[in-house]
Amino acid sequence: MKKSLIVYVLGWVLAVIGAMFALPMIIAFIYHESDFMYFGFLAACCMTFGLIATRFKPKNPQMYAREGFIACALTWILMSIVGCLPFYMSGQIPDFTNALFESVSGFTTTGATILGTDRQIEDLSMSMLFWRSFTNWAGGMGILVFLLAVITPLSGQSNMYLMKAESPGPVVSKLIPKLKGTAVLLYIIYGALTLIQFILLLCGGLNWFEALTVSFSTAGTGGLSVRNEGIMAYEGQYYIQAVITAFMFIFAVNFSVYYLIIAKKFKQIFKIEEVRWFYGMYILAVIIIGVDLMIEGDMPSQLDLWHHTAFQVATFASSTGFATYDFDKWPELSKTVLMTVAFVGACAGSTGGGFKVSRIIILLKNALKELKTILHPKSVKTIKIDGKTVKDETIRSVSVYLSIFVTIYLLSVLLVSINGFDFETNFTAVLATLNNMGPGLNIVGPTGNFYGFSNLSKYVLMFDMLAGRLELLPLLFLFDPSCWKSK
Amino acid sequence: MKKSLIVYVLGWVLAVIGAMFALPMIIAFIYHESDFMYFGFLAACCMTFGLIATRFKPKNPQMYAREGFIACALTWILMSIVGCLPFYMSGQIPDFTNALFESVSGFTTTGATILGTDRQIEDLSMSMLFWRSFTNWAGGMGILVFLLAVITPLSGQSNMYLMKAESPGPVVSKLIPKLKGTAVLLYIIYGALTLIQFILLLCGGLNWFEALTVSFSTAGTGGLSVRNEGIMAYEGQYYIQAVITAFMFIFAVNFSVYYLIIAKKFKQIFKIEEVRWFYGMYILAVIIIGVDLMIEGDMPSQLDLWHHTAFQVATFASSTGFATYDFDKWPELSKTVLMTVAFVGACAGSTGGGFKVSRIIILLKNALKELKTILHPKSVKTIKIDGKTVKDETIRSVSVYLSIFVTIYLLSVLLVSINGFDFETNFTAVLATLNNMGPGLNIVGPTGNFYGFSNLSKYVLMFDMLAGRLELLPLLFLFDPSCWKSK
Repeated sequence: MKKSLIVYVLGWVLAVIGAMFALPMIIAFIYHESDFMYFGFLAACCMTFGLIATRFKPKNPQMYAREGFIACALTWILMSIVGCLPFYMSGQIPDFTNALFESVSGFTTTGATILGTDRQIEDLSMSMLFWRSFTNWAGGMGILVFLLAVITPLSGQSNMYLMKAESPGPVVSKLIPKLKGTAVLLYIIYGALTLIQFILLLCGGLNWFEALTVSFSTAGTGGLSVRNEGIMAYEGQYYIQAVITAFMFIFAVNFSVYYLIIAKKFKQIFKIEEVRWFYGMYILAVIIIGVDLMIEGDMPSQLDLWHHTAFQVATFASSTGFATYDFDKWPELSKTVLMTVAFVGACAGSTGGGFKVSRIIILLKNALKELKTILHPKSVKTIKIDGKTVKDETIRSVSVYLSIFVTIYLLSVLLVSINGFDFETNFTAVLATLNNMGPGLNIVGPTGNFYGFSNLSKYVLMFDMLAGRLELLPLLFLFDPSCWKSK
Repeated sequence: MKKSLIVYVLGWVLAVIGAMFALPMIIAFIYHESDFMYFGFLAACCMTFGLIATRFKPKNPQMYAREGFIACALTWILMSIVGCLPFYMSGQIPDFTNALFESVSGFTTTGATILGTDRQIEDLSMSMLFWRSFTNWAGGMGILVFLLAVITPLSGQSNMYLMKAESPGPVVSKLIPKLKGTAVLLYIIYGALTLIQFILLLCGGLNWFEALTVSFSTAGTGGLSVRNEGIMAYEGQYYIQAVITAFMFIFAVNFSVYYLIIAKKFKQIFKIEEVRWFYGMYILAVIIIGVDLMIEGDMPSQLDLWHHTAFQVATFASSTGFATYDFDKWPELSKTVLMTVAFVGACAGSTGGGFKVSRIIILLKNALKELKTILHPKSVKTIKIDGKTVKDETIRSVSVYLSIFVTIYLLSVLLVSINGFDFETNFTAVLATLNNMGPGLNIVGPTGNFYGFSNLSKYVLMFDMLAGRLELLPLLFLFDPSCWKSK
């Protein structure tokens, strides 16, 4: 492996993180917080070391698959470690593992938190709260994509490998032929939608700080909040919660939809199978839970019932993990539907997590095809999505994805069960982290948190969050010695 | 589809079931039970209708894949319905759904029961208890295999399709070139091993009735028992429980091992990868649980600790579902290990259930191969088991098996959750039925039963038991209209 190339990329990453620290510095300045110095110090260090590393551009900057995966995995680990330092150095989260957990949860857009037991979310300073929500936003679209959009230090093919390693979904969807253009466009769409949500929330009466941080968390489908109560804090503010519902839904849809809107190709939007399946799943889940709550639940009114159902399904389908209601007290069917929706997750090419709707479509279509082949050996042996034949290679990689997913899932539940918590907590804690959702049920439910887990469990769950965000492969390759050999 | 062919096969099945009823008739005769008449009546009816149906041998008896699958699925449904009639007609299980559940659970070798709440297992007459345990034995090796061994009414190719539909594992392992010979040999090994266990249990002081019924349930890896307390009834009888442990292990191993023993090819046995993985999994699970119980549990002695651990892991790995200890009270890690072992299940070509060790091996090896291919596109693209290249077709079918398994699993948990029971109960009830294991955790734990589920849930779980025993496909094809069309 070309180690100098990796160091070069990580240098750029470090420089970008350094630049990102400028934002909480501004917030600390506005609110006259002493945290200014931590962010300032870290910004200076990151910029210095990062820019030094970028001075050594490798002579042969051609990247291959393994460099792409390893660079991506190390980028996210570096980002998480550096990102946790403000919490840790300021003493606001004095335990390093907890600080790291919060940072990993932020960047991977999981939204699981260890706050709420020994210290409350509101105990953090404004600049720390801002930084915490900002990690959700930065992680949502991905920092390598940002690097490609803004800096593009490498050649086209190298960029492709980096983008492949970081983007969600079974195939990289290029909106326009040029990769750099695609990355720029993605960030423009992302920024514009975040801005619109921010304005709509301001109109609803939220102060600018909360409107901004909530928009960051929604856009990244992260789910971190500046209030201990999360979105339940806005109880009765139906407009605010409805705006969040709508935007969770918006950010969970394949971003190519927004490209089509820009390109005024409206008809094509409804032809995208993944989006139609996602809508279908959403509506079906809302109906099942709505009816279940009508029969079994004790919701105060019909408005509340449908409002909270629409919100909760959106939050799980998009893997955001916000809560407007303590769904842990909902009937079992509703909870199971929520967990199923969470397992499926969002569309590929969105900021949402989960197994991804497109993978489910490929697996189901492939299963039907294989069953047909058993009965009619001469039948057609391809499957199509959006009218295009899915490559055998893609089907194979999605099938393998499921095997690896189930394996990591089982091993994680086993390791986490050492804590001695109940099965529901363990099972949904892994679901919540591996699918970058945030809360689970019971101890890790909407009113609980991840504080009580042992350090071992926390590192397992951090691995799951990173594995989930990077779609398993980059993190696995870290453990492959053949990846590390120099050529 | 050739319906006359299906009717012909079902006729033979009915005749065989009729003949099987002769056994509980003998038991009823010995114990002077009035149930004699129910078994007699049913035997007469089944034999008559069955033999009439077999008089109409189709002119063109060539069977294809779809006839094989449909015949297999209908065989098992017919068998389950006819098999429940003694319980129902005699009024010993007065509710039809419950009676059917018990019969399905028996034939599929699941061992889940609805007895223990409104009526106890001991309330059943001796002949009914015998019949219940005998269904475990008959279902273990499969009735179609029996048909092939004894009657072989069809041509070679047709038999192959029938055997393919009923045998456990990703590929049919023929012990000897001739299929009929293989079927005969399988039943001889099966019968001989059952007999040895029966004798060993007799030596341990069990009366002949209990020794026989326990041997039936162990051989089929079923787990139904003639005592409400199950194998816990033999508390302190270490010899009895150890014999059962050993035989659960024996019946969970690929039967080709016993063929190799007969053929005196001892060296080859330890070269079978599946068997080595199965041993490995077993030992690893025993060690983890043993250590966990040492630290967290409150077992009375070291002997008890290892004895019960060895027993419980064997019962879950073989999908038998017996219990010598209330493992529901064990620490969370131990319970999770047991459930993981249960998920993996037994070896292909055994009477055990579960996902099957060989499928796990294929999926893991394939995942490693695919990961390698990403990094080194020119690397070898095949995987081997026992030194032989695994066909692409087999890999594809195992991958699809996983997709379908997960889909059926999720849908079942969703439907069962309507009951409002807790997540642990629902999740493990589906695991226990889909993997033909028997007990799960909590409400369906070793001291509980399936009585409390609604009829809807019971039918879902019956579907899962049949789907699990027949390895998903035959039951799915029942829902494919194209299967039913006449040619």
